Amino acid sequence: LRVVVIGFGSVGQAFLRMISEGGVSSSGLWIHPRVVAVADSGGAVVDEKGLNPREVLEVKRREGSVAADPVHGRPGLTGLELLRDVEAEVLVEVTPTNIRDGEPGLSHVREALRRRFHVVTTNKGPLALALPALMELAEYNGVQLRFSGTVGGGTPILDLGREGLFGNRIEGVRGILNGTTNYILTRMAEAGLPLDEALREAQALGYAEADPSYDLEGLDSACKLVIIANWVMRMESSLGDVKVEGISDVTLDQVRRAEAEGMRVKLVASAVEGRLEVKPELVSRRDPMCVDGTLNAVTYRAEPAGEVTVIGRGAGGSETASAIIRDLAKIRMEAAKLIA
Amino acid sequence: LRVVVIGFGSVGQAFLRMISEGGVSSSGLWIHPRVVAVADSGGAVVDEKGLNPREVLEVKRREGSVAADPVHGRPGLTGLELLRDVEAEVLVEVTPTNIRDGEPGLSHVREALRRRFHVVTTNKGPLALALPALMELAEYNGVQLRFSGTVGGGTPILDLGREGLFGNRIEGVRGILNGTTNYILTRMAEAGLPLDEALREAQALGYAEADPSYDLEGLDSACKLVIIANWVMRMESSLGDVKVEGISDVTLDQVRRAEAEGMRVKLVASAVEGRLEVKPELVSRRDPMCVDGTLNAVTYRAEPAGEVTVIGRGAGGSETASAIIRDLAKIRMEAAKLIA
Repeated sequence: LRVVVIGFGSVGQAFLRMISEGGVSSSGLWIHPRVVAVADSGGAVVDEKGLNPREVLEVKRREGSVAADPVHGRPGLTGLELLRDVEAEVLVEVTPTNIRDGEPGLSHVREALRRRFHVVTTNKGPLALALPALMELAEYNGVQLRFSGTVGGGTPILDLGREGLFGNRIEGVRGILNGTTNYILTRMAEAGLPLDEALREAQALGYAEADPSYDLEGLDSACKLVIIANWVMRMESSLGDVKVEGISDVTLDQVRRAEAEGMRVKLVASAVEGRLEVKPELVSRRDPMCVDGTLNAVTYRAEPAGEVTVIGRGAGGSETASAIIRDLAKIRMEAAKLIA
Repeated sequence: LRVVVIGFGSVGQAFLRMISEGGVSSSGLWIHPRVVAVADSGGAVVDEKGLNPREVLEVKRREGSVAADPVHGRPGLTGLELLRDVEAEVLVEVTPTNIRDGEPGLSHVREALRRRFHVVTTNKGPLALALPALMELAEYNGVQLRFSGTVGGGTPILDLGREGLFGNRIEGVRGILNGTTNYILTRMAEAGLPLDEALREAQALGYAEADPSYDLEGLDSACKLVIIANWVMRMESSLGDVKVEGISDVTLDQVRRAEAEGMRVKLVASAVEGRLEVKPELVSRRDPMCVDGTLNAVTYRAEPAGEVTVIGRGAGGSETASAIIRDLAKIRMEAAKLIA
């Protein structure tokens, strides 16, 4: 598999580190992705014979951009130009999420699918805005679009719902999909911190961004919910279909009253009877979904399997990169089937 | 797919009910298993053109054995005789678990694999005693052996570990794998019942057998642990490799002391560094694996995804039958790949 990587932050770098340690294997299947190009905001590095991942990482570390590579560097080359230029089978799109217009990820994904590249992405923006259209585009071009890492980091939330519960009817889903807000709400409950102090603590620990509004307002949860709704529940929906309320108005008093009744205030994303919603809710501490700290949890209401809950870290560079590996392996397996 | 069903208790009957409601589908794939024979302890019913599941269920309900069918009934025919007699692609083996010698399930599974039937089973006995040999036999004969329903009922515990966490190294597993003992320990903790009272309550509710020793002594958990160890962690092991201690000696006093420290006594099955063990352990109530009532939970320690926990009902006829459907769908998909 020849792979183009666009975006080279923590996830992209973790991905290159993983494949630099030789092939990656699991379940008896080895995959040996060959990275032929990497692009970041400074340009790209391209070698159709295959780049040395270690060297790319080293140039990035030393110079700030992969484009500074003295032999293969292409300063100023954009991701879109790169896609029009290079021969490969797979785009790994890991630029940052932008929910205003999905760019530049949306254009990267579209161009790659049109060029009949399979696409693996961890970028929620393009999917939250246009997943039904992108899936159609992938199908039309006979290629695969995979995005395990967009929900739950390395925790296989999407796979569990779609493949693990194969044979079930998924009647509803509820989940805690954002680690930042869950950390804040947990600290309010357990340490009695007011929201703004808990937020500052989360920022100091690197759990929250300098501008935390995307997390706090529930938009990150809403993006993930849209992806679950499309992929697991086969609802054709986008971000505009989600009723969203964040945690900014949650008071310490509310949290304390909940606590006294054996409950926790959680930012819950739910898809039930076609309604998509993100809002603070009281969750019983006995509910398996009631996880604390930065953990994520999702409960599928499946018929006949019953309620199935999956819990894990929701983020992290190498965790999310492991989801990319999983997607690449599936692409290889599926593609082998189509060719055979 | 032509299917032979051997064993016709709650799981076998739930399976026939499911497929009697037309084909079964999920993930866009429909499967239409055609049941050509069903055997129970009284004999069998056979029609190579395909039985009517509703009629088979009705004869069972009315007469106690499927062999009473006036047209296709074969009183006294054993499962093994049936397997030597009938043409089919898949054996669904759902006779009761017997951990002494695995019989009659073990002979059914062996004979079916030798005859190049794929096998789907929910019977833990043959697997706990001989899984490595059975997997080799299946491979030698070019057929599949699947057993999703042996662990967790309809909760995809095995699938999550092997497929959902594809691309990870599974470094360890810990779980609560037996609903009966978990119910008893929960009632001891929450209602202050001594063990024997909690057991009687579980029996009255149908959560425990008249002879509860298989659950209480940890053997059911040990069987499931062996299956996880073989399938997910690729350890070649069998029941004799597990150090087992049940809950019979757990006192109300121990449970209360644990409770006071924010812990619960749980019957934990673990596979860590090649050691397989089942024993009562203190588990923090903050641990996502610390579920109550009859729930099951498993935590995989995966690298790099981190700890991933899956929680769900661990048993039930239709829940477990849904795992059979999943296995059949996978067999169909895999077989299509091999033929293509």
